[in-house]
Amino acid sequence: MRIVVVGGGAAGASAASRAKKLNPNAEVILIEKTKMITHGPCGIPYLVEGLVKSKEDLITYSPEEFERDRGIKVRINTQAIDIDSDKKTITLARLGGGSQEKIQWDKIIIATGAIPQIPNIPGKELKGVITVRHPAEADILKEEIDKANRVVIIGGGYIGIEMAEAIRTLGKEVIIIEKLDSLLSNAIDKDMSKIVEDELARRGVEVRKKTTLLEIVGKDRVQGVLTDGGEVKADAVIIATGIRPNRSLAEQAGVKLGKTGAIETNEYMETNVEGIYAAGDVAEKFHKVKKDKVWIPLAPSANKEGQVAGANAARGRTIFFPGIVGTSITKFYDLYIGSVGLLAKEAELYGYKPIEKTIKARTSAHYHPQGRTVYVKLIADEPSRKIIGAQVLGYSESVAGYIDVASVVIDKGMTIEELYFSDLGYMPATAPVWHPLIVAARVLSGGTL
Amino acid sequence: MRIVVVGGGAAGASAASRAKKLNPNAEVILIEKTKMITHGPCGIPYLVEGLVKSKEDLITYSPEEFERDRGIKVRINTQAIDIDSDKKTITLARLGGGSQEKIQWDKIIIATGAIPQIPNIPGKELKGVITVRHPAEADILKEEIDKANRVVIIGGGYIGIEMAEAIRTLGKEVIIIEKLDSLLSNAIDKDMSKIVEDELARRGVEVRKKTTLLEIVGKDRVQGVLTDGGEVKADAVIIATGIRPNRSLAEQAGVKLGKTGAIETNEYMETNVEGIYAAGDVAEKFHKVKKDKVWIPLAPSANKEGQVAGANAARGRTIFFPGIVGTSITKFYDLYIGSVGLLAKEAELYGYKPIEKTIKARTSAHYHPQGRTVYVKLIADEPSRKIIGAQVLGYSESVAGYIDVASVVIDKGMTIEELYFSDLGYMPATAPVWHPLIVAARVLSGGTL
Repeated sequence: MRIVVVGGGAAGASAASRAKKLNPNAEVILIEKTKMITHGPCGIPYLVEGLVKSKEDLITYSPEEFERDRGIKVRINTQAIDIDSDKKTITLARLGGGSQEKIQWDKIIIATGAIPQIPNIPGKELKGVITVRHPAEADILKEEIDKANRVVIIGGGYIGIEMAEAIRTLGKEVIIIEKLDSLLSNAIDKDMSKIVEDELARRGVEVRKKTTLLEIVGKDRVQGVLTDGGEVKADAVIIATGIRPNRSLAEQAGVKLGKTGAIETNEYMETNVEGIYAAGDVAEKFHKVKKDKVWIPLAPSANKEGQVAGANAARGRTIFFPGIVGTSITKFYDLYIGSVGLLAKEAELYGYKPIEKTIKARTSAHYHPQGRTVYVKLIADEPSRKIIGAQVLGYSESVAGYIDVASVVIDKGMTIEELYFSDLGYMPATAPVWHPLIVAARVLSGGTL
Repeated sequence: MRIVVVGGGAAGASAASRAKKLNPNAEVILIEKTKMITHGPCGIPYLVEGLVKSKEDLITYSPEEFERDRGIKVRINTQAIDIDSDKKTITLARLGGGSQEKIQWDKIIIATGAIPQIPNIPGKELKGVITVRHPAEADILKEEIDKANRVVIIGGGYIGIEMAEAIRTLGKEVIIIEKLDSLLSNAIDKDMSKIVEDELARRGVEVRKKTTLLEIVGKDRVQGVLTDGGEVKADAVIIATGIRPNRSLAEQAGVKLGKTGAIETNEYMETNVEGIYAAGDVAEKFHKVKKDKVWIPLAPSANKEGQVAGANAARGRTIFFPGIVGTSITKFYDLYIGSVGLLAKEAELYGYKPIEKTIKARTSAHYHPQGRTVYVKLIADEPSRKIIGAQVLGYSESVAGYIDVASVVIDKGMTIEELYFSDLGYMPATAPVWHPLIVAARVLSGGTL
C-alpha cells in the first residue's frame, strides 16, 4: 500500500508518522514544497525578535531524520500539482525545474495548510510588503524588518499583535491598522480588547482602529500606506489580515469544500472522495459549542487531525477526531490573552441565551509577591447554566492554565455551579484561595452561590 | 434567629458571611479564640522567609471590618467551651479571665479547624521546639528560627518542605527527618519523590529518610534530636508531623465523628445533631474518586463548605457540597509539586486496576526560552479508561494550571482518549504544540492513540 501525504507541516508530518507506525509495510511518501518539514510558523515572531536565533530552530525534525528514523520517504522542494481521483495518481513537480512525475496512490492525505490572505489593493507587490506564514521565508521577513525604522502592520489579530511585540522589542516604531473597532476580534469581545489596547499604548504601539487600508504607497519600495483615515509613512508593511485554506489542489481533485471554504471531512478525516483524507489548516473542524463546522486553523488540532487521518488511512476507520472548542492563546509582552468557546457577541447566533460577567483578580494570595492582575470573563447559557465561553487576560503565564481549565469545563458541558465546586488547587504562590475562575463562576451565578 | 459560628478561619468566616448575606435579619455571631480572623496559615512559611513582612498581611479582613462591613458580631479572644445540644446553648469564655457567658443559638456551625499533631516523646516541651499552625503564633515561630543556625524539621510533608525553603533562604542549615522512605507521601508516589529529594539536595537541605524521631534532646532549650539513626544537633526543631481535627468541642456536644476521626457531615454540611453544622478542617469530605469519606484539610474546600453550611443554616437546605478530588499543590524554590486524585500506590485499595505512565517534557515549544522541565504522571483505571490520578512536578508556575486541568478531568470522569482529544491551548511561550498532559495521555494509552 502506498500512502501519499501532501504537506510537511504539523498535520502532514503527524499523518505520515502515524500511518507508517501503524502500517510499517506501507510505503509512506511525504511531499513538501519548501525544504523544511515539521516547521512551526507560530515561532516566526520570536525569530524576528531574536529570541530564536535561526529558522532551523523552528523545525522539530529535519527531512533526513524523518527518513532515517521513521522510514518515511520525504520529498522536499516538491509540489503536488494534480490529483486524479479516478486513476488514483498524483503529479509531482520538483521546484526549480526538471520533469514532472506521476505516481500511483492507495490513500492520499491532503495537508496543504493555509496561505496568507492578501487584500487586492494597489501596491501590494512593492518591496518591503511582507506576510508572515512559512518559516522557510522567515529570513526574508527578518531582513526586511531589521532594516526598517517604522513598520505598519495591517490587521490587529494574533499575528499582528505578536509581530508588534517582536518589532517593538527591536526598538522600531510600530503602527497597527485595524478595520474593526476592536483587536483580536475572533478571540475576545470589545470590552476585553480595551485591556489589550491599553497595553499596546503603554508599550508605545500606535493603534488605528476603524481604519481601512486603501493602497500601499511607494515606487519600487514601500513608503507608506493610504487609509480612509489618511496616509501613514512606513519602511515596511506587514500584511496580517488573515489566512485562508490552501485548497487549490483539493478543488482540482474534486474534493468537496464546506461552507467555511475549507475542505469538508467527517470525524474520520475522510473527504467525499474515496481514499482522500484531509487534515490540519486546509480542513474545517467541528466546533462542539457552536455545534457547527468552523474554520479555526491552529497547530494542536492540526497535529491530532493528522494523526487521525494517518491512522485511518493506514488501517481503516480506527479512530475519530471529536472536534474542538476553539481554545486559543497569545501574548503581547507579559500580557497573556486566552480565549475558548463562544464570544458573548456571537452566543445568540448559535441559539444560546448568554449571560456574562467579568472579574478582576490576582493570580496569587493577596500577600504573595508573585501575584499578577488577571481578568476573567465567563459566558454561560442562562437556561442550561452551562459555561459556553471564557476569556482570560492577565500579566502572568498562568493565564494558559486558566484557559485550559475553561477549555475542559466547556468541552464537558459543565454548569456554573459545577465550575464553582470544582476542586482547583491552592497555594499562596500560585492562586488565591478563591481561584479567579471560581470567583467568576460565583459572580456569574447571580447570587445562587 | 441566632446563628453562632465557632472558628474564624476560612470555613467559619465564609459561613458567617454567607449566613448574614442570605438572612440579614439573623443575628450572626463569630467566635474566635485568637485575635485574628480570616487568617491564612498557608502563608506562614512566606512570613518566616521574609517575603511577607507582617502576620497582619496574612489576614483578609480585620474583626473590625467584618463587624462594620458585614454586620456580623465578632468575638475575638473568646473560646467556646461547651455546647448543650438539647437546650441549644453555648458557653463562651473570654481568654485572659472574666466570667463565662452562656448564650442561646438556633443554628451552630462548628469550624474549629485543625491542630498540630505532636508525637508523644520526651523533650517536646523544650524551648525551641515549634509547630506551624496559626498566624497568631507566627511571630514566635519566626523569632525562634531567626536566632537558630541549624534547624531540624520533623516530617517531610507540605509544611516540612515549605519551611525548608523558607529557612534555607535565610541561610541556615536545614535537616529534614522523615520516617517513611519518601517525601510528601500523601501527595506523590515514591518515583516522583526522587525529583523533590534531588532538588532538596541541590539546595543544600539534608534529608534523612526512614528515620524515626525518638527524643528531643536539651536542657530547658533544645540542643538536638535523637533518632533511630543517631543524634542530630539543632538550635530549633520544627514539628511538622501532621495535623488532626480540632474536634473536642464537637465531641463534647455529641456530634458524631466519622471513621477518619473528623466530624461526619452530609452534603448539606449537617451533622447528626439537629441545628449543628460543621465545615472546614474539622470535618471530613467526600472524595469523588475514592468514593469514600476522607480527611484532607485544605483551604479551598474549607471556604466552600463554610459557604454551604452558612447558606443552609440561614435558609434551610438550599445548596450542597459535592465533594473533592484531592487537589493539592506546593513548591520548593522553583520546583512546583501538584497532585490530584489517587496515587498509584493506593489505587487498588479503592477497587481500581491502575495503569500509570510518567513523561518528562517542557512547558514551552522547544525553541522558546521560557520553557522549563516538567514531569507528568498519569494514572488511569484500565477497564474504564478513566483518569483517576495525576502528579505534576516542574520548574514553572504553570504546574498549577496542569494540575487544575487534571482536577477537572478527573472530576468529570474523563477517559485517556477524552483527555488526549481535549482542546488545550497552544502558543510557543506557554506550551509545546503537544501539551505535556496530552503527551502523557497518549503514552498511557498504550498505542491506541
